[in-house]
Order: sequence, then C-alpha cells, then structure tokens
Amino acid sequence: MGVTVPFEAGRKRAHEPSLETLQALVAEDLAEVNREIVTRMESGVPLIPELAGHIIGAGGKRLRPMLTLGAAKLCGYSGRRHIGLAACIEFFHTATLLHDDVVDGSDLRRGDASANALWGNKSSVLVGDFLLSRAFSLMVEDGSLRVLEILAGASVVIAEGEVMQLTTSNNTETSEAEYLEVITAKTAKLFTAACQLGAIVAERPVVEEKALEIYGRNIGIAFQLVDDALDYSARQATLGKTIGDDFREGKMTLPIVLAYRRGDEDERRFWRRAFEEGDQRDGDLARAIALMERHGALADTVERARHYGAVARDALGIFASGRAKDALIEAVDFAVQRAH
Amino acid sequence: MGVTVPFEAGRKRAHEPSLETLQALVAEDLAEVNREIVTRMESGVPLIPELAGHIIGAGGKRLRPMLTLGAAKLCGYSGRRHIGLAACIEFFHTATLLHDDVVDGSDLRRGDASANALWGNKSSVLVGDFLLSRAFSLMVEDGSLRVLEILAGASVVIAEGEVMQLTTSNNTETSEAEYLEVITAKTAKLFTAACQLGAIVAERPVVEEKALEIYGRNIGIAFQLVDDALDYSARQATLGKTIGDDFREGKMTLPIVLAYRRGDEDERRFWRRAFEEGDQRDGDLARAIALMERHGALADTVERARHYGAVARDALGIFASGRAKDALIEAVDFAVQRAH
Repeated sequence: MGVTVPFEAGRKRAHEPSLETLQALVAEDLAEVNREIVTRMESGVPLIPELAGHIIGAGGKRLRPMLTLGAAKLCGYSGRRHIGLAACIEFFHTATLLHDDVVDGSDLRRGDASANALWGNKSSVLVGDFLLSRAFSLMVEDGSLRVLEILAGASVVIAEGEVMQLTTSNNTETSEAEYLEVITAKTAKLFTAACQLGAIVAERPVVEEKALEIYGRNIGIAFQLVDDALDYSARQATLGKTIGDDFREGKMTLPIVLAYRRGDEDERRFWRRAFEEGDQRDGDLARAIALMERHGALADTVERARHYGAVARDALGIFASGRAKDALIEAVDFAVQRAH
Repeated sequence: MGVTVPFEAGRKRAHEPSLETLQALVAEDLAEVNREIVTRMESGVPLIPELAGHIIGAGGKRLRPMLTLGAAKLCGYSGRRHIGLAACIEFFHTATLLHDDVVDGSDLRRGDASANALWGNKSSVLVGDFLLSRAFSLMVEDGSLRVLEILAGASVVIAEGEVMQLTTSNNTETSEAEYLEVITAKTAKLFTAACQLGAIVAERPVVEEKALEIYGRNIGIAFQLVDDALDYSARQATLGKTIGDDFREGKMTLPIVLAYRRGDEDERRFWRRAFEEGDQRDGDLARAIALMERHGALADTVERARHYGAVARDALGIFASGRAKDALIEAVDFAVQRAH
C-alpha cells in the first residue's frame, strides 16, 4: 500500500509544506474567529453548545475560515467584516459535517466519537439545522447583499452536491465527470465562497475576486481528491482515521471510478458485488486496494489533485508577492502533498 | 373518546369556520406562489424535485404562505414581493417537516407515505437542507435586510425550538411553561414571521407590524395546541391520520403535561413507564386517553388554544374592517374549532 508520487519537479522546499505558514499569517484574526464561534454557538438550549462544541472544538484545521482570512490579507483588507464571515463559513462547514455523519452513519470523526454516535442522529440533524441557521444569521449581520447572494447561492449548490453524491453512491457506472461535478459542488463550492469573500470585503476589482474564486475552487477540488485517495492509504492510519470508510459506505470516489473503468470483467463483477449489491466480505477491502494499486488509481487520483493544485497556484499570479501569497500557495502544496 | 367543548359564547356562524374565506381572498396570489414553488424546487439533480414535490404537492393547506398573502392584503399591499416571500415561508416549513419526520421516525405524513419512508432518511435530511438553502436564497432575492433579519432570526429560533423539544421528549417533568416555550419557538415563530412580512412589504407603521406579529404568534400557538389535542382525538381518524403518534414518540405535549400533573402516584408511574422507560404495552394508548379524559386534559388543551385564539383576534382590532380582516379572523376560528 502507499501511494508513491515523484516530488514535484522544479519546486524544492527546506521543509514539508504545511498549514503553519497560513496559521501564522492569520493567527490573531483566527483567535477572534474562534471567540466569535464560541459566542455564537451559545443558546438557552444547553444541548446546542454541548454538541456543537464537541464537533467545532475537536481538532478541525479551520482550513476554510483561514482561507477567508488569508484571502482578505492578500487583498490588503484592514476592516473587521472577515471575522464574522469566517465564523459563518465554519458554521456552515460544521453543519454539513453533522448531517454528513448522519447520512453516512459514521461513528468516528477525526479519530474521535462522532456527534451522532454520542448524542444520536436526531440531535445531530437538529443541531446541524441550528448551525446552518446561525451561519445565515451571521451573513445577514454582515449586511452586504453581494455577500448574501454568494453564500446563499453556495448553500444551494452544496446541498445539491450532497444529494447528487447520494444518487451516485453504489453506482459503479459513475463517470469521472459526474464525480467531479459532485465534489465541485459539495466540497469546492464552500472553498470558493470562502476565498471570494476576501476580495469582496476588501472591495477589490472583479479580476481579483475572480482569481480568488478560481483559487478556491481548485484548492477545494484538490483537497477532496487527496482526501478520497487517503481514505485507502496507510497514511490515513497515522492521522488517527480508519481506512476504507468510503468503501464500506459504497461511495463512488475517483479511485474507485478509475479502478472500475480500468478493470477487466472479473474485477468489475467484484466492484458491482461490493458497491451495488452491498455484499461486502472479509478481505474485500484489501482486494479493492490491491486492484486500485494495480491500476494506478490512487496515484492518478493524486496526480489529478496536482493538476487542480497547479491551477489554484497560477490563479494567484496576478497578486503581488508577499507573505499572504506565499501562505496561500503553501496551503495548496499542503493540500496535495499530505497524500505522502 | 372525543373532546366536548361548548360552542363559543356570543359567536354564531351560518357555517363551520374554515380556511375557505382566506383561500378565496388570496386565490390568485396563491396560484402564483404555487408556480414559484414548482419553479424554485427545480434542480439538475432529479431526486430533489421528485422528493420535494412529493411533500410539497401532497395536500398541505399552505396555511403559512396564505397568512403572508392575507396579511399583505390586510395592509393594502399591491406589489409583488409577497409572492417570493410566501414561497420562502413554505420552503422553510417543508424543510422542517422533512427533518421532523426523520427525527420522529414517522412513516406517514397527511395519511400518505412520508418522504423518509419512500426515499430513506438520508435523502430527506439532504433534500431538507436543499429546501432550507432555497428558502434563504429566496429571501436574499427579496433584497431587504429587514426581511432577512426577521427570517434568519426566525430560523435560529425554530432550530432552537426543535432541539428543545428533543430534550423535553420522554421527560414527564416537563412543565406547561417549558412546553409553551417549545411550541412558541418551533411552530409559532414561523407563523409570526409569515404574518409580520405582510406589514413589512407594505411598509406599514410599526404598530401594524407589531399587531401582525402578535396575531401570528398566537394563531401559531393555538394551531399547535389543537394539533396536539387532535393527536389523541377520534376526530383525527376522519382526517386520515393515525391516533397516538405523539404518544408512541414519547412527545411531551400539553395533554400529557396536564394529565401527568393532575394524576395520582399510580397514574404517574404509568406515564413514567410509557414515556421515560419507553416500555409501552398493548392498551397503553387507550389507558392514556382515558386518563386524559378523566382529568379534562384534552378539553383544557383546547381551552388554552381558545385563549390564544382570542388574543390573535384582538390583535387585529386596529385594522379597518373588510374582507382581509374577516378572513384572518376566520382562520383563527378554524385553527381552534377544527378540534371538534
């Protein structure tokens, strides 16, 4: 097991790319965002901060709100609006995590018991609705119709992506294009909005907003592709996550799409049995990983991620060099290279 | 079985109060709202209009959007904004119905198979999220920050009410005040917002907006109280609904709250067994209804509804007489008297 991809030509670093540069760049703002999050998940109903605190507090990277903060810095923004909006983005993200875990029947989240495992599906659905509503009230407080259009529009697209994913689940005929459509909507749309907001609060020209939009979409796609490869990779275990969750849930991610299409009739019968007939047996996951390796499906999934990462990096070309740009570019490298 | 409440003193009608007067008043607008609903639940993901169409199309009264339309008429509004907002209110309502049915594990909705029974819980959660997002995008399209504040705020309160209800479930110690807090949030808040919007789009003075707010909250509470009584009433069967759903789900509605508090220690043991220990046996529902009847719990629940209905009616006192006012008052009478 383990995906081997050559280190990117022409790029050398003294250290492994990480999110630390971005974290250092936005540290002060992020501390404020965290305070805003804690304040705004308060409620007279104790179960709400209790359950929300469990998932919001538990080791998330805060990647999406950091992108809003980083994009605002890149655009030279010196106001305060990005704080509430970054909190809004994180509430949004957390609401979808809560509902995803219910839909996927996941007992674990980041190596810890999931909220639905601890409090039950009912609580997760309803507290997810609360966080979604709180996200909306935060964006209304910002008071800009442009911001509201972007976030309300993103919310519709994300929900459509989630439903689309449900309908492609267990369908081995899912194409790479359909898979891309799903992740562009359900994952990359929130990254897109998160980055776009940086240019909007700073009232930068459309060309910069567009650039951040493209950056956001592409880092989002790269991020999801690597996530989908990691789900089958030994690297995952070192992150405290289980391997093969997507397999057990019958999720048609790109590694499976590629392995199925590159496989022979015997292999396809195996995939159909495991994914469509839901007949999974001992040893199936190991066989699945062996097939993906034989066909280079995991390495090529990461290779696709590298492509989207390159597009994300180039989108930032129009911005002046500096700490913010460096940090956002390193975030792309991190998104891609954490596969190794 | 069957609740007997004296016909309201001093009020006589040639016909049973119904929603027909309100329906006739807003018929044209409602047809437009229905078209808007059909258009806006469209999506490139076929499961969305399919599932949403099932629940939106299936025999709902459209009471909440009709209240927005009726309130706008009462305020002499002649514009178009109330159409989109009424559709928004209905999307909101439908999203909560979808999630409620998942949370309650209901197989039936209005005598028909529920969406979760037909498409599964996963689809209902995610299509509910879509409808919630669509509701938000409709209110953003309206473009008024005042409207957005009201609806985003309502959305938070409704979600809090739903979680609060979950935490009072199976708790026989729930007080009448706590129960009222739950239904004021989870049910009456949407009625409140629906009615308030009528005055806001018509740009009427605060005193009229306030009046419609009070009308909405009180008709909403009355409506929920009667619903909760009907759940144990023979009348329910004639509406194609099952009896005792709330009992089986351990929902602490006012009839139970009253019966528990008025009962002796032996009765309370029964309620605790059925609600807290979840140990329900053959004949328990019949015994529960007999106890409620003995203590007048159903009749007094309707009596409480009558009180809130009276407050709702009086709130409209400041408006000039006319068709719109008559229709909104008859809607209150309908909300209360459908108990019989």
